[in-house]
Parts: sequence; structure tokens; C-alpha cells
Amino acid sequence: MPRYDILSEDAMAVLERGWRRLLSDIGVEFLHEGALDLFRAAGQRVEDSIVRFDPEWVLECVASAPSEFDLLARNPERTVHLGGRHMVFSPTQGPPFVREGEERREATMADFENLCRLSQTYDQLDTPGGLCCEPGDRPLDSRHLDMLLAVQTLTDKPYMGAVITEGAARDTMRMTDILFGGPNDGAVRVFGVVNANSPMRYDTRMIEAMMVYAAAGQAVIITPFLLMGAMSPASVPGSLVQQTAEALAGLALTQVVRRGAPVVLGSFLSHTDMQSGSPGFGGPESAMGLLCSGQMARRLGVPWRAGGGFLTSSQTADAQAAYEGLNTMLPAFLAGANFIEHSAGWLESGLVACYEKFIVDIEMLRMLQEEFTPLQIDEASLAYGAHQEVGHGGHFLGAAHTLERFRTCFYRPLLSSTENFERWKSKGGRDATERAGEIWREALAAYEPPPLEAGLRAELEEYAAGRRAELGD
Amino acid sequence: MPRYDILSEDAMAVLERGWRRLLSDIGVEFLHEGALDLFRAAGQRVEDSIVRFDPEWVLECVASAPSEFDLLARNPERTVHLGGRHMVFSPTQGPPFVREGEERREATMADFENLCRLSQTYDQLDTPGGLCCEPGDRPLDSRHLDMLLAVQTLTDKPYMGAVITEGAARDTMRMTDILFGGPNDGAVRVFGVVNANSPMRYDTRMIEAMMVYAAAGQAVIITPFLLMGAMSPASVPGSLVQQTAEALAGLALTQVVRRGAPVVLGSFLSHTDMQSGSPGFGGPESAMGLLCSGQMARRLGVPWRAGGGFLTSSQTADAQAAYEGLNTMLPAFLAGANFIEHSAGWLESGLVACYEKFIVDIEMLRMLQEEFTPLQIDEASLAYGAHQEVGHGGHFLGAAHTLERFRTCFYRPLLSSTENFERWKSKGGRDATERAGEIWREALAAYEPPPLEAGLRAELEEYAAGRRAELGD
Repeated sequence: MPRYDILSEDAMAVLERGWRRLLSDIGVEFLHEGALDLFRAAGQRVEDSIVRFDPEWVLECVASAPSEFDLLARNPERTVHLGGRHMVFSPTQGPPFVREGEERREATMADFENLCRLSQTYDQLDTPGGLCCEPGDRPLDSRHLDMLLAVQTLTDKPYMGAVITEGAARDTMRMTDILFGGPNDGAVRVFGVVNANSPMRYDTRMIEAMMVYAAAGQAVIITPFLLMGAMSPASVPGSLVQQTAEALAGLALTQVVRRGAPVVLGSFLSHTDMQSGSPGFGGPESAMGLLCSGQMARRLGVPWRAGGGFLTSSQTADAQAAYEGLNTMLPAFLAGANFIEHSAGWLESGLVACYEKFIVDIEMLRMLQEEFTPLQIDEASLAYGAHQEVGHGGHFLGAAHTLERFRTCFYRPLLSSTENFERWKSKGGRDATERAGEIWREALAAYEPPPLEAGLRAELEEYAAGRRAELGD
Repeated sequence: MPRYDILSEDAMAVLERGWRRLLSDIGVEFLHEGALDLFRAAGQRVEDSIVRFDPEWVLECVASAPSEFDLLARNPERTVHLGGRHMVFSPTQGPPFVREGEERREATMADFENLCRLSQTYDQLDTPGGLCCEPGDRPLDSRHLDMLLAVQTLTDKPYMGAVITEGAARDTMRMTDILFGGPNDGAVRVFGVVNANSPMRYDTRMIEAMMVYAAAGQAVIITPFLLMGAMSPASVPGSLVQQTAEALAGLALTQVVRRGAPVVLGSFLSHTDMQSGSPGFGGPESAMGLLCSGQMARRLGVPWRAGGGFLTSSQTADAQAAYEGLNTMLPAFLAGANFIEHSAGWLESGLVACYEKFIVDIEMLRMLQEEFTPLQIDEASLAYGAHQEVGHGGHFLGAAHTLERFRTCFYRPLLSSTENFERWKSKGGRDATERAGEIWREALAAYEPPPLEAGLRAELEEYAAGRRAELGD
């Protein structure tokens, strides 16, 4: 499907002048001496902790990053490609709470594992990510080990590693080497998602993680998380140029650490509800922002992460959750995003991973994946023979053309109901959210772990146990 | 905003060959002697009741229809323009049932009037249409008079007239003349929506109504209602060519009745759920169909009605209703529809007008109308001064740029909530559908009828009373 480009060349030029000026005149703060040294050595202007960039040099860094690359899975059939016309989806990442029906509670490791299992179950998701909820019942210092073990063993898809500390990033590299049977030989086998500390700053921990990933040639997805009016100006164009400047500064860091390190430019642009002071998701501004971000990222020629996904501020998996979610995800498809986090389960501005919303989102994702598959339009597709058979005022239900393809000709829903009222009522009159509750429970009951060699599992567990002991947990 | 075109020139050529062949070889049945005489007189091949068209002649008819026109309202500020880059929205039309909270019941005249009042209240709707529900408590033969009176007096927006019988169409013309103070002088003051009796047939009543509207120079919106697999082939391209052939045949009829009569080409393309046999709405096929239909209609150069609107098969105003609805309406925006029926209230595949869904839809419509307003991108929009003020790692909440525009800088929702969980819970923990119930009740309580001269109202009522007596009701 074609991209939906909405920016004129004039507008693109205004935006480009904007991010160039931010990079060169305002500059970006890096709270890390090693990073500052690297930028200084590369000839950039460094004063205190602020780096003022030569935009042309930044574009050279962009050019040295791969325009697309494979992200390996331990099951080769699950390997995905990042960049070009490919799209990769992960469930929601980071929520400290879960919602299950009417119950909202702190997330636990059991929830984390369940969400991994659901991520493995649905082919619409390419990766479980690595933080599908915060397992609050595990020690803070070592929970990254539990989470890594879960994504490595409960799924056979590519996964996201830890970025919370330099040590956690190093653990990610070690456990990934174990899973893949040895040090990497240039292959990309794990990715990390780092946020700028917007506006115009990267903090020490994020920089440390970026440096570990980049040095190992593993993918870094660099995402300024901008709530317009709070972390960026109350203006879509103003926020777009900030987002670009921040992401490019992060990209430049990966390239001074290691030329050619794989990187994804991220965007995550939403607004602050100026009445409540809360973040707002799924509104017109973020949809616009997505369309513009995609067009700008394509011009730069690196893979692009959309801060899309099915985002919403809603507190339950209701109509608002659905329309705000789709109003974020559909623009991400139109804009040609390469990587989309938060594609299943996101609720309450990201504070909650909701089981029912997970299923609602999977249904929407299935629909969109079919919707964005180009139609085949040729003589056979016109079904002229069916018209000759049916004629005027008849019906096509019994036509040969229909009978030959009735099983596969239309999208078959997972969750949506077309039942007439009487039948729907007689089956309990349950809305989509209630039906979703049945679907995820059945999916978990039917889950089977992907095969994993026992020795490998033992080795991973041994590593994790050793590190837990070192960390005192 | 630009249109989102997805069909290549090759695909367009295949589709054009397809509809031309249907018009010339299969032909369209018209169950009306007068219509057949007109086509015969215009040189088309007529055998029994089938008209086989010369496609070139049909394109001459297309060229004689206006490419855009004004549709007048009794309040000149409410006059709308049909065609070009304009979009006109009506609430859902035709449902025999209403839903109010958990109650589903037969629609009454009181519901009809309420839906007119809500249509008047929300500026997002340009017209109440003329059949926002079927008032089952009024006699079948004369209820069109009640409905006309309601749209004429409870709103001051353009309205849709009756097409149910030739007599009802004539009553529409007479009551419109009364409302506007005399016979029309070439202005378009009312529109009718007619459906083909697909496949490839127009029935007598529809033809009679089309002829009355066209003869009076009033707008006819011609809409093949196609559920793929039932009224058209189980194929999107096959259905697109049928839709075009049927709509163009109807357009040709209006032009042989009166050259230059205003007409809108309609599309309404959805699928049959082959498991339940029920119609399905909001799926990938109809979204695709909308994008293609818009592109094809633009090529023809007449105003286009999208069978968009917020369509859904859902039984309640739940997540399914929202995502299916938005997945129909967003493509209609992308495809540049000029007229969109069913933009508020549609539920249960069109059987139900739901008060809560009405409000959910108004919220989505408000979002989309803002979303499809192009961004202004210039130096001022970059808010560079705010960056100079805030610097690195600060926040923009208190920046002068933000304070100057915080009231208007972002979309302000009608229904959506960004409240944090504790606050939302303390206020009752109501989902979007429950909150919508409060909003429509408040809107009805605050409704004030638009001014209407007493003499005019008396004249309309007198006409309706006289006709009711003639019809024996």
C-alpha cells in the first residue's frame, strides 16, 4: 500500500531548518563524560555537558546506519526485518498495573509470563518486547533477569532487552549470547528501547545502555517521548523538530560508538490535556504527528518506530479505548511505520496492561493487517461469470464464484460479532470486552511453550541465578 | 488534506473495462415503463425491462450533471456545498429500533424528534437527514408527513425528503416549496436517497421517486447497497464495478428526466459474514472498498457519497462499535467523501439508532474533522523561542508560548476522559457509553428549537393535515 504523505516540500523544508537549528544552536545535553569525549573527538562543539552539532555531520552518521536489517529470532521462522516496507509489532511495554475484567491491580511476574504467552500465541505480534508489564513482586535490581528468561523461554520470537542499567544491558548481551549459542558475528539478535530525557537531554543510564547495545552491534530504538505542552512546545511542528533533533543526536551517539550500529528512529508524540494536566492519547494531534513523523523519517532513510500502537487514555476497554487506539494505529499504518510498540493491551495512558484490551487490539491489528494488503485487481477478480450467472435482481449467495471461495473471501473476526440481536441476547448479551475475557483465557489454556533445548534453558537459568546472587536478591 | 489514492492506473483501467462491460452487456433492469421509454428515446438498447447502455453515452450523462452544487437550508448559514473538497454529514437513517442504555425498543415519533433535536445541536452534523429512525407509532401511509414536519421545524439545516412512494416524493416537493416560500427557481433545497435493487435492477418505487426529484431539479443520491457475497460478487473489485455500473445507470435516468439535475454517486459496500449469513460492517473489505470508490468517483467528477459513516454490526455501543465505526469513517475521510450518511447513532448493522452511540460518534467525528484540517507549518509554528526559554531537561508547561495558547492548542474532547484512575473511580468509574448517556440527556434538556415564523409552521401543518385526511390516517 502507498504511504499517505501530507507534508509539502515547503513544509518539509521548514521542519528541516527547524531541527538543524535545534541541533546546532540549542544543542543536546548528554550526562555522560564518555559520550561527551566521543562527540568531542568527532569534532562536535562540546560546552559543559551540551553538545552542539554540525547538522551535516549528523547526516553523515545517519548515512552510516543501516537502512534496514534483520532482527533474529531463536526460531528462524520468527526472524523479522526492520526497515523498508516491513512492519513489526510488539504488545504494550512498561505498565506497572494490570487490568483483568473489573479488577485493577499491581502487575506480577505471573502477569508478565501470561502476557508473554499471549504474545507467542498471536501471529499478529512479532515480538513480546521485553517489558510487557513491570513485575512488582520481583526485586528491582534483578527483575530484568526474570523478564529476560521469560521472553527467551516462553516465546521463540525476537525480544527486547533491558536498558534500565549498564549492568542490565550487559546481562542482556550475555544471556542473548547463551540463547543463540555463542557471541554474535554481526547479527542483530536483540533490541533495546531508550528514551531521551526530553527536552534536549539524555540521562546517564540511557546513555550507558545505548553504548552497550551499540558497541555490541545490537539495535537501539531511540524514542523521544514527547507530551506536547510539557516535554515539548504546545505545537505539532515545534514538537516534530524537537523529536527529530533528539532522535538524531541519539543516533549520532550510536554511530560514534560503532559505525554501522543498527538503529531505529523513534517518535512518540502526544499531547497534555491542559484541563486535567494528564497525558492524552489517540487525539487528532498525535495522528497528525504520526503522519508527519513517518514522512520525515523516510526522507532520512533509517527504520522508523511509530509511537503508535493502540494508545488511549481510557480507564477501561470501552468505546473510547477502541477509537483512541485505532486513531493512533491506523495513522501509523498510513505513515508506513517499521516498528510499533504498544500494539496490544495498552490502557490508562500506559499505566495498565489490560487482558481484555489485549484481545480487542489483536482484533484491530488483524483487521488492519488485512486492510493494508493490496487488492489484486485483474480480469478474474471482476467475477464477470458470476454476473452472467446471477443476472438482474437475483443473489450471489449460491453463485459458483461465491461457493468456491466463501470460506476465505472475507475477513473472519476473532472477537467481533455479527449475530442478530435475538441470538446474541440468548447467548448472554455480552459486549466485546466481556467476550474478550473468554478469548484470552482460552488462549492461555491452549498455550504450549515453544521447544527449547534443556541444556540451554539450564544454562540461562544458571546465569540468572548467579547474577541474582551477585546483586544480593 | 490530500486524498489517499491506492489504485494504480492499470487497476483503474481494469475497473473501467469492468463497469463498461456490465452496462453494455449485462445491462440494468428498470421496472418502470416511463423510464424505459426515456432510455429508448435516448437511443439505448431496451429489451423487455433491461436497458443495455452505450458507456460513452452514459459518460455524456455524467458530464451533464453538475460537478458540485449548493444544498440550501432555511437558515442560510446552514446551507452546505456538495462536491469538491466539501464534506456533509448526517446521522444514521432508517433504523426501526432505538437503543437507550440497556433498553432496546421499537422507535417512535418521539425518538425521531429527539434525534432531530440532537442533529440540530451538534455542529458536526450538517443535516438531520429525513429518516433518523422509523416512527413505528405513526401510520405507514402518512408518516412521511410527520417526519418532514419534524426535520423542517426542529432543525434549520438542509434535510432529506421521502422516496417511499411517488406521492410521498410529491409531498416532499410541496412542503419544501412551502418552507422556502414558493416554488424553486433552480435552487437545490432537498435531497432524496435511493437504492438500487441490486444486482443490476431498479424497482418501480425507487424509479418513481428519482423521477419526481430529478424533474424538480432536486438532488438524488443514488446508492447501490451491496453486501458482497449476497447482492454482489464475493470480490471487492467485482463489487466495485457493479456499484459503478448501477450508480451510473441511475444517474443516466436522472439526466434523461432533466439534463443537469443534481446527483450524487453513492457507494455502500460491505460484506456478508459467511458464517452467520448476517451483514458485516467495519471490516477490511469495506475500508478498501471506500478508498477505491472515492478514487473512482473523483475520476468521474460528480459528488460522491461514501457508504461510510460509523458503521458496525455490534449490538451495543462497545469497543467493537467504536473500532468498526472508525474503521469505516476514517477511510471515508481519506477517500474524500462529499456526503456521509450514518455519521451518528448507527448500531446493529443499521437496525438500531442508539442514543449513546450517537454521542460516541459525534466525539469521533469532532476528532476527525480536526485531524483532517491541515497543519500550518511555518517559522512561528516551530516555537523556537520556547526552546530558547526552556533549554535542556526543563518543561514547557510554564513557557510563555504554552501559556498563550493552552486553552485552544489541543483538541478538547466531548466524551473522552483523561482522568487518572483514582479520580475517575471516585466519580463513579463510568465507561464512555455510560458517560454518553449523560451527555445526550443534557443536550436534549438544553435544546432550543430554531426560530420559525408561526404562519409558515401553520401552513406546513395544514398541508400535512390535509394529506393525512386524503390518505385516510
